[in-house]
Amino acid sequence: MLQESQIALDPLPHLKNNFQNDLHKVDKLILESVSTGEPLIEKIATTLISAGGKRLRPLLCLASSHITGIITQNSHYLAAAVELIHAATLLHDDVIDESILRRDKQTANTLWGNKPSILVGDFLFARAFELMVKTENIRFLDILANASSKISEGEITQLRCIKSLGLSIEDYLKVIEYKTATLFAASCQTGALSGGANEDVAYQLYEFGRNFGLMYQILDDVLDYTDESRGKKVGDDFRERKVTLPILLAYQSDTNKLFWHQCFNDKTVSNATFENVQKRLYELDAFDQSFVIAKQYAQKAKESLQKFDSPISEKMNALIESFLDV
Amino acid sequence: MLQESQIALDPLPHLKNNFQNDLHKVDKLILESVSTGEPLIEKIATTLISAGGKRLRPLLCLASSHITGIITQNSHYLAAAVELIHAATLLHDDVIDESILRRDKQTANTLWGNKPSILVGDFLFARAFELMVKTENIRFLDILANASSKISEGEITQLRCIKSLGLSIEDYLKVIEYKTATLFAASCQTGALSGGANEDVAYQLYEFGRNFGLMYQILDDVLDYTDESRGKKVGDDFRERKVTLPILLAYQSDTNKLFWHQCFNDKTVSNATFENVQKRLYELDAFDQSFVIAKQYAQKAKESLQKFDSPISEKMNALIESFLDV
Repeated sequence: MLQESQIALDPLPHLKNNFQNDLHKVDKLILESVSTGEPLIEKIATTLISAGGKRLRPLLCLASSHITGIITQNSHYLAAAVELIHAATLLHDDVIDESILRRDKQTANTLWGNKPSILVGDFLFARAFELMVKTENIRFLDILANASSKISEGEITQLRCIKSLGLSIEDYLKVIEYKTATLFAASCQTGALSGGANEDVAYQLYEFGRNFGLMYQILDDVLDYTDESRGKKVGDDFRERKVTLPILLAYQSDTNKLFWHQCFNDKTVSNATFENVQKRLYELDAFDQSFVIAKQYAQKAKESLQKFDSPISEKMNALIESFLDV
Repeated sequence: MLQESQIALDPLPHLKNNFQNDLHKVDKLILESVSTGEPLIEKIATTLISAGGKRLRPLLCLASSHITGIITQNSHYLAAAVELIHAATLLHDDVIDESILRRDKQTANTLWGNKPSILVGDFLFARAFELMVKTENIRFLDILANASSKISEGEITQLRCIKSLGLSIEDYLKVIEYKTATLFAASCQTGALSGGANEDVAYQLYEFGRNFGLMYQILDDVLDYTDESRGKKVGDDFRERKVTLPILLAYQSDTNKLFWHQCFNDKTVSNATFENVQKRLYELDAFDQSFVIAKQYAQKAKESLQKFDSPISEKMNALIESFLDV
């Protein structure tokens, strides 16, 4: 019973506990990757990487190896590689979004400027591929190169669709699948393959990761309007004029389209405007409706796990639940 | 005789003529790589890629396949991949350097802003790896992932060493080896391997590419102060406070160090300051001395080609000569 209540209370550290040694090895690989002798790389990369972060992608990579086979040296390389890809995208995203805070700390672009952030992002990305090469298995490079180009493509479409209130839900879902879900999917799929799973089994984990990622991004898009306590500035998406799911659902159901056009076309964003938007989103049930859609992806993610009946897959289930418990 | 005079007149198109069909296939692969359905990618990437550019790296990749074996489908994939890596670095470099012109045209960051340039650069880089995966040979990914992290590392060191007049020539050479020569070296090495060469032979081509790249970058650094006609703004390096070879040689030999410290620490760069710097570089023979060093690398590049006695290697020799003929 103690174990179950722990899961319910805090499933992420609980799942992490099972992979402490492995995550330690992964962190070591990551830090080795950024130890080049170039001080500017070491400073920025180690600050970013040591600052914590949930290590969700490496964790799901390792868990996928575990529930479908065994954790191998290749699982470690891949878990480190997906975290490096993630770190590279964070550095570039923070430049693109002009973000000031991440995980309650000043972003690299705030501390050191945009130029080093762009270049260190490129460096981490290249280093991720060097780690993948160590697996001596081109299938992993195939999956993760494809995921990497999708991440950029998703970000580019999102940039093009700034202020596009007429964006369809389908197109929004494609953006978040590309920019977020694909890397979760690839982390799980490569994790499974490195553990000995065949392609069919690994595809089940790909589907788990994809649906988990879709849920994760939808919830992130909701929290951007509602959560003051997650180490980022509330309202960043609105200030950047990103049209995310709550906005699209509200805009589609609102008879007063003008309100939205005015809010998204104001040259500057006042706190009053942001508060009006928040209020209207609540009135139109946009957060609850977004939550319903996130839950559908959570359900699909759980279904992909069903055939893997183990204590770890139960903890992965609990992890999904914990994200919904917002 | 006609052939020889053509080589002397214009060795680059002359060498290209031998690989027209191959370069056409390479261009097709590149354009296919950026055809994703995302209009912002297609617009930026095709503008950059169709704008011309010398296609030096794919050309040297193909020529390396040819003089050591035969041009294969993999040679085409690799030639396209190295050009995509190069294009990705151009997009990011122009953001970093705040460049306005490239090849006499407005840069992507000028036309579309920094954000799409960063993301499309990331996309091209990922696509380069997708092309490498098509070779089904992890050795190529090994070489080019390593080259890619070196490129970023070189750029980062260069950024860190802005205004560092005390930089040693050795450290300058490491920067340009990393940021420029490594990709030439990797293009030639992978070209040779894809043509059937063994590792020893491919290493000869690596050495050719490395020395060619060092020569190329030194000459580029000289031309940045001297050539008004190459599609870039003269003086970009000085305005960005990069300490390149002519500056380092002049600074080291000048008894008036204060002149250089003042020029490199002025908050704004006036035309008068730039002209004074140009004049002092001439007075101190910095361009001629740089040229002597470039020639040494040219000589080494030629030596690496000596054992490959073919009409193509002769044209590669002529190509080296043509760069020195400035």
